[in-house]
Amino acid sequence: MSEEATSEKLVELAKRRGYFFQSSGVYGGVGGFYTFGPQGASLKSNLEDAWRERYALGEGHMEIDAPTIMPEPVFEASGHLEGFDDMLVECPECETSSRADHLVEDNTEYEDAESLPIPEVEEIIAEYELVCPECGAGLAGVAVEDFNLMFATNIGPGDAQPGYMRPETAQGIFVEFPRLKEYARNQLPFGVTQIGRAYRNEISPRRSIIRTREFTQAELELFIDPEEDEPELSSVEDVPVTLYPAPEQQADDGEPIETTIGEAVADGTIADPWIAYFLGVSQEWYASVGVDADRFRFRQHLSGERAHYASDCWDAESEIDGNWIEIAGFAHRGDYDLSNHADHSGERFTVFKQYDEPKVVERATVDPDMSYLGPEFGGDAGAVVEALEKLAERDRAAFDGETVEIDLEDEAHEIPVEKTGFAVDEETIAGEHVIPNVVEPSFGVDRLVYTVLHHAYREDEVDGEERTYLALDPEVAPTFVGVFPLQRDDDLEAEANAIAAELRAEGLSVTYDDSGAIGRRYRRQDEVGTPFCVTVDYESLEDDAVTVRERDSTAQKRLPIDELPATLAALRAGDLAFAEL
Amino acid sequence: MSEEATSEKLVELAKRRGYFFQSSGVYGGVGGFYTFGPQGASLKSNLEDAWRERYALGEGHMEIDAPTIMPEPVFEASGHLEGFDDMLVECPECETSSRADHLVEDNTEYEDAESLPIPEVEEIIAEYELVCPECGAGLAGVAVEDFNLMFATNIGPGDAQPGYMRPETAQGIFVEFPRLKEYARNQLPFGVTQIGRAYRNEISPRRSIIRTREFTQAELELFIDPEEDEPELSSVEDVPVTLYPAPEQQADDGEPIETTIGEAVADGTIADPWIAYFLGVSQEWYASVGVDADRFRFRQHLSGERAHYASDCWDAESEIDGNWIEIAGFAHRGDYDLSNHADHSGERFTVFKQYDEPKVVERATVDPDMSYLGPEFGGDAGAVVEALEKLAERDRAAFDGETVEIDLEDEAHEIPVEKTGFAVDEETIAGEHVIPNVVEPSFGVDRLVYTVLHHAYREDEVDGEERTYLALDPEVAPTFVGVFPLQRDDDLEAEANAIAAELRAEGLSVTYDDSGAIGRRYRRQDEVGTPFCVTVDYESLEDDAVTVRERDSTAQKRLPIDELPATLAALRAGDLAFAEL
Repeated sequence: MSEEATSEKLVELAKRRGYFFQSSGVYGGVGGFYTFGPQGASLKSNLEDAWRERYALGEGHMEIDAPTIMPEPVFEASGHLEGFDDMLVECPECETSSRADHLVEDNTEYEDAESLPIPEVEEIIAEYELVCPECGAGLAGVAVEDFNLMFATNIGPGDAQPGYMRPETAQGIFVEFPRLKEYARNQLPFGVTQIGRAYRNEISPRRSIIRTREFTQAELELFIDPEEDEPELSSVEDVPVTLYPAPEQQADDGEPIETTIGEAVADGTIADPWIAYFLGVSQEWYASVGVDADRFRFRQHLSGERAHYASDCWDAESEIDGNWIEIAGFAHRGDYDLSNHADHSGERFTVFKQYDEPKVVERATVDPDMSYLGPEFGGDAGAVVEALEKLAERDRAAFDGETVEIDLEDEAHEIPVEKTGFAVDEETIAGEHVIPNVVEPSFGVDRLVYTVLHHAYREDEVDGEERTYLALDPEVAPTFVGVFPLQRDDDLEAEANAIAAELRAEGLSVTYDDSGAIGRRYRRQDEVGTPFCVTVDYESLEDDAVTVRERDSTAQKRLPIDELPATLAALRAGDLAFAEL
Repeated sequence: MSEEATSEKLVELAKRRGYFFQSSGVYGGVGGFYTFGPQGASLKSNLEDAWRERYALGEGHMEIDAPTIMPEPVFEASGHLEGFDDMLVECPECETSSRADHLVEDNTEYEDAESLPIPEVEEIIAEYELVCPECGAGLAGVAVEDFNLMFATNIGPGDAQPGYMRPETAQGIFVEFPRLKEYARNQLPFGVTQIGRAYRNEISPRRSIIRTREFTQAELELFIDPEEDEPELSSVEDVPVTLYPAPEQQADDGEPIETTIGEAVADGTIADPWIAYFLGVSQEWYASVGVDADRFRFRQHLSGERAHYASDCWDAESEIDGNWIEIAGFAHRGDYDLSNHADHSGERFTVFKQYDEPKVVERATVDPDMSYLGPEFGGDAGAVVEALEKLAERDRAAFDGETVEIDLEDEAHEIPVEKTGFAVDEETIAGEHVIPNVVEPSFGVDRLVYTVLHHAYREDEVDGEERTYLALDPEVAPTFVGVFPLQRDDDLEAEANAIAAELRAEGLSVTYDDSGAIGRRYRRQDEVGTPFCVTVDYESLEDDAVTVRERDSTAQKRLPIDELPATLAALRAGDLAFAEL
């Protein structure tokens, strides 16, 4: 089957079976907004739980829950107000808005148009005579503009305060750093996670839930001491990965590399050990929730492509219909965010790092003789004192001679050293204030949902009939087991209901279905991706056994009812394979 | 201790221990936006899970996950664009915005100012010479205005489409009804739940997380056939409740009533059986998550107070600092929402109800002789046909005589019956299209978090020292057990870490703490509300036993390490009491 067809069929199945669909369809819908139906909401929630298990609890980090609307100063500091733009070109004929960089990438040989300056993009549009994708009107000469991707709103009545829907959950963590570090008892490293909504007012949302305007992120912000903290690389060094480093992307015949985390660190392919650690962790985690390892890789950002804050960045990418889409980003954000919030807020975004032993340091100070400086410099005397203090800190040798020279508004002045009160004292200090660096694994949950469904999509033939099923991992499948009475019959229904209740009490996710032919009910659960079905027939009322059917193989086995809960729980946990029954 | 003091101390504890705090504090904060810290996010998530367990899974309903931004047509239909207003009065001196109805309620004997018309509120402000709460300037004569509480934004670039942050999660369910009913296989009753953010641009947010601008709702929309579906009242009829019906609120000496759900239905205090059912379910559910039944009641809305859509409404209220606050609403929304969305979208918001037996009905039709009507009425002939069709449907007796009279633009016309082709035919119909009614239990999650913490707040004296603790229910407490080595010591730490790991594997929420004196560590967990602490001491290394301490009683017992996981799990499930150990 063609890959293109898979996506089309998947979107149709998603709508039919309650995974996801465009929102507000009765009003014609709005681009970029999707609703997760009962199955989709459950799959999404299971994936979020799996993420929480691994990246929050598994790493010993704390999870917080911050508002989605944040006030303007946050985004002045973060750089989003100034720099979180896409290139917009509006068709002069039909007024359709398009992303100028996408037009260029789709219709020329330029691959990374996002990183080009606007005038160059305008030139390329003119040179290639690019046209509006909607109506075909020429776009040469039309101005390309920066369009800020944040949704804006106003907080409160009257002279309202500007607010924005957060474009990433991360800022809700960064701005609270001064308090969060207290919960971490001022010890680095510590991590803070958040799973929640983020918003980007995309110019042209596309491809179902892959590029939406409202989406869910799962982010971990790990605060580290850049000089001391190191990850436990040994735990992931043997993990095999497919890497697509920047040089390979830029080479004419460059191909992704098959390697291991340990080798990639050793040969410098991955420069930062923390990034390497999280790539290793994530390789295994993605596989555990059902992403096909053969359709998964890590791609390094090209230098022009990196976000304004990132010093190095790798994306996790999954293959969908022959295209690679970003499903997570691993960025070393340095001290960009904390420094900026410190500068803009005037608050302290540091952690006090106590030395093992107090250090004795020399400190050069001045204590100028104002009875000399006053008459000599008048109103400038204060500035002279400041200049002397800075000079003492910077270059104590300047005070070695009889006089010392300072610059005041580009004019040099000589001052007798004896009038400066220059001295070098010893001081004992217990530690220093460190601005932590931030390592950020950032996951797109909606794209993960899409990938997991796409990689699980199967078609085969059963008893001469075409069958569609989702080979979802039992740990994340919305429903784990379907329970059916063979047909409408009081006794069969009573027994089936009793079994369903018992399996629910075991903590399994159960659906009960008594409508339609049994074959049709199997197909329905196949399409939903339910790993197992249990059917109660007339024999069951006598032999206390039921038929258990496995989704992928469609194989059936007869099992005693009283063994069902334990057996199904073991199948779910992966402690048992169906073939072994 | 005074009640006022409790709230103040609670807010302080919440900040110190990571429950909640005002967001973006480093930039001065913005009224009405709060961040849940690690403990608060966990408590909130546990309460959401408990809600889901009871109201979604427990009732067999489906959960969905819809966007928070919705397009304008949704709120034109829902009535929010027109009617979701608060009364705003802006001080002419200091420009502070206040809610006019709150000013009136706080400073006069009027109790339900929200339901008064604006001119009357303006009169009361003038009559009582009410002043600006901020600067004291007189507000007499200042215009009171309607202020819409929805946060507005624009979707997409260019001629942007207006969008709003949803003021309730409910609309994300209602607009998708045509699709959701298919997932329910077109069978009433069925319920759809959603837990998610909702937004109200409050004029003056107040009282910590009680009245915020961004909050979390847990809502169930139950779609019922108003003529057939009935709740299982027998399951809740014996549940004791405190009710405060409208008549008691309006009577001079009216008091809340102690009764049971069964009695309240029998004597008509609760008119609607579905509302009664959910009050019973919720009385028990609230108690199960730690709301104090003695500080909890259901209050009926006064007629002027009901939302624009509700035909009857009761609130769940909890007592905080001597005041009663709304923590849930139980509304019978009738067919208001579905009918309005059907009218505005032109789509079908009905369920086809199949009769047990097909019904034979008579249907009156016309088949007018156009060769007569055409010449007689010219361009109005079409309108005449329409009028005849409507008349036949409405009043077939009108066709009994020789002529039939119709009105056309207020002018009567006589038409010979033989020219109308009037006939009565029999038709067999299999069922009818029913607009479901909606019963809605709607819960405020933030206010529930606040109530649970407030009702759990305790102060006592232990060993002559004041102690503060949160007597949280073990099922919802963010941390279930703290594990401590008695002091910093490699052997003790190794053993304590091993125990912590084993308890985590048992699925318990564990915190490990080795910093500070043991007493201080107990106090820290007391303030966080951790039900149990386990301490590993030097004896443990020999007798393989540890000290387990209960939070509320501070009693301590010695338990074998190998029995710990099972014993603690039993304590958490409530299968065992600490005193029985």
